[in-house]
Amino acid sequence: MSYSKINFTPGPSQLYFTVEDHMKQAFRDGIPSLSHRSKKFESIYAEAVSGLRQLLNLPSEYHIYFTGSATEIWERTVQNLVGETSFHLVNGSFSKRFFEISGQLGKLAMKHEVAAGEGFSHPLEVPPSTELIAVTHNETSTGVSLPLDFIYSFKTKHPDALLVVDAVSSLPYPDFDYSKLDSVFFSVQKGFGLPAGLGVWMVNDRCLAKAEQLVSKGRSIGTYHNLPTLHSHALKNQTPETPNVLGIYLLGQVVSDMLRHSAHKIRKETEYKSFLLYNMLKKHSRLKAFVKDETFQSRTVMVVDSGDLTEKVTKSLLEKGMQPGDGYGSAKKHQLRFANFPTHAKEHFELLVDTLESM
Amino acid sequence: MSYSKINFTPGPSQLYFTVEDHMKQAFRDGIPSLSHRSKKFESIYAEAVSGLRQLLNLPSEYHIYFTGSATEIWERTVQNLVGETSFHLVNGSFSKRFFEISGQLGKLAMKHEVAAGEGFSHPLEVPPSTELIAVTHNETSTGVSLPLDFIYSFKTKHPDALLVVDAVSSLPYPDFDYSKLDSVFFSVQKGFGLPAGLGVWMVNDRCLAKAEQLVSKGRSIGTYHNLPTLHSHALKNQTPETPNVLGIYLLGQVVSDMLRHSAHKIRKETEYKSFLLYNMLKKHSRLKAFVKDETFQSRTVMVVDSGDLTEKVTKSLLEKGMQPGDGYGSAKKHQLRFANFPTHAKEHFELLVDTLESM
Repeated sequence: MSYSKINFTPGPSQLYFTVEDHMKQAFRDGIPSLSHRSKKFESIYAEAVSGLRQLLNLPSEYHIYFTGSATEIWERTVQNLVGETSFHLVNGSFSKRFFEISGQLGKLAMKHEVAAGEGFSHPLEVPPSTELIAVTHNETSTGVSLPLDFIYSFKTKHPDALLVVDAVSSLPYPDFDYSKLDSVFFSVQKGFGLPAGLGVWMVNDRCLAKAEQLVSKGRSIGTYHNLPTLHSHALKNQTPETPNVLGIYLLGQVVSDMLRHSAHKIRKETEYKSFLLYNMLKKHSRLKAFVKDETFQSRTVMVVDSGDLTEKVTKSLLEKGMQPGDGYGSAKKHQLRFANFPTHAKEHFELLVDTLESM
Repeated sequence: MSYSKINFTPGPSQLYFTVEDHMKQAFRDGIPSLSHRSKKFESIYAEAVSGLRQLLNLPSEYHIYFTGSATEIWERTVQNLVGETSFHLVNGSFSKRFFEISGQLGKLAMKHEVAAGEGFSHPLEVPPSTELIAVTHNETSTGVSLPLDFIYSFKTKHPDALLVVDAVSSLPYPDFDYSKLDSVFFSVQKGFGLPAGLGVWMVNDRCLAKAEQLVSKGRSIGTYHNLPTLHSHALKNQTPETPNVLGIYLLGQVVSDMLRHSAHKIRKETEYKSFLLYNMLKKHSRLKAFVKDETFQSRTVMVVDSGDLTEKVTKSLLEKGMQPGDGYGSAKKHQLRFANFPTHAKEHFELLVDTLESM
């Protein structure tokens, strides 16, 4: 018997509905104790990577590496892609943490910051010297998502900088044009509905060249998880360290399930489910979308201003078997967050929206 | 039905025999999608840590942190505990990698190196200036284990240096006197019989003070996984990043099982099983222990010089449902490695030894 509550927390979130069966198969096939230097591991690795390439429509100049978390990728990104300066668009706790990590690593980290719940628009001045522009596609703390054309515009205006996108709580939903970006990353416990403990880092050849250039200048870019080391192992379908083998296996299986369903359907369903919620909020007298400007309303993490109703709404949802996400940090008492990931069925969303509507 | 082959590879190795049941319970309890900021996670974290403290008899001045792998701990150790110089005892591929990582991070890494299969003995000169002495208790590549008194002697002779012990493929077997060490670490896919993807880093207060001292001198000690950040989160039974929640849960469960069995029994059984194998090898005409000096023969990873018989032995073991570990690296064609971890039952070892004896 499986855990029956529907988990709307934005990460770790509800498991993709096939995960438990894949876990059982993994035990039958000896995956949890499989050597990471075996041929069988290499084929598991290759399957996960090729599935992701297909699902995300990733161009061939991109490479895929595995880390322990997306938090690790923040650090590795700065170590490997920044010599002196990075520039960050900050509009919430997670984009702010990326900015802070750059400073902690001794770089000159610059930012353009707006209030929580807001997005950005041009004109927005980027220091011409910056080597990296860091954009958080979907701020998990506030439910603000940035339009893709806005993100791509940095590439046009600042072609020499590397454009890095944190897509932790949005993929596999966004249909990125990766040729207009240089690096995109996520962790598996959100949109992919997998147990936490694995980050996925996608970089193009320009990123590899930048890391090599830093090495040639005598800069330290870390050790076992620097880009050249990750790359030389990835070419053999291996990892530098003993990785989360089970996590990579489960990712490959879920990606394969998603491919059967199709990326297109996942996108359409995500939009339909988010429409249900936002549409109800427009008409509700006491529950409101926290993000006012529709241009910036996330499809995958939706934040509700629940005010005095917060406790009552939470209780009512829990009674019907639904676990809402708390508002982030100090917003815990007056906001609720709802993940809208591929595993959240239309029926779950209809039940959620009906329950909220009746409050 | 579970995977039935007995896995003697030294890591990832055979799962501890209770892991599959714990995984089923984890799914029933919603652990794979549990928020790492929930009270329930904090209690899971606390249970794993207090169980480990008890099993290893860890003094209160030690702290326990979780990372993605033991490879990560090599890097974090150098970042957090070395300003200028480290000294490494190198006698195989893993102790060598620890040494190399220090150099890669721009430190002056010094070493005393002996041939593969050999141990160390005094007099052994340690540069008086070194800030850290790195010892690999059990070289997984060669099956060489260092006597505990030899390791402790560095503490007596060099009290100002931090003494760090890689116990990746030996714990929970060794009964360390932690007061004579400063940091010990391991990964869970070896002696603890868990799926790979989690490193366990134990440090005392001197290590925390050293990291703080490096910060005060303006040195970079990394970001989310530096010691002060790990420590401030550990005080709340939390981790800085979204961790391998399932891995921490399973570790706590297996440690609890091991406590019921008792650390003492685990040690006695480990010694009995290793005696069976080494004793047979002494009498065998064609299979020999690779490590000649009994003082250095590992109890937990035993390496057999199998020469021309390697292929035949492997085939014979596989036919009986036993998976031997390949010799490491270039020794693949003429050596076999056998893990002797708590999950390997006496009966498994008797079958293994009988089969090898008959070759």
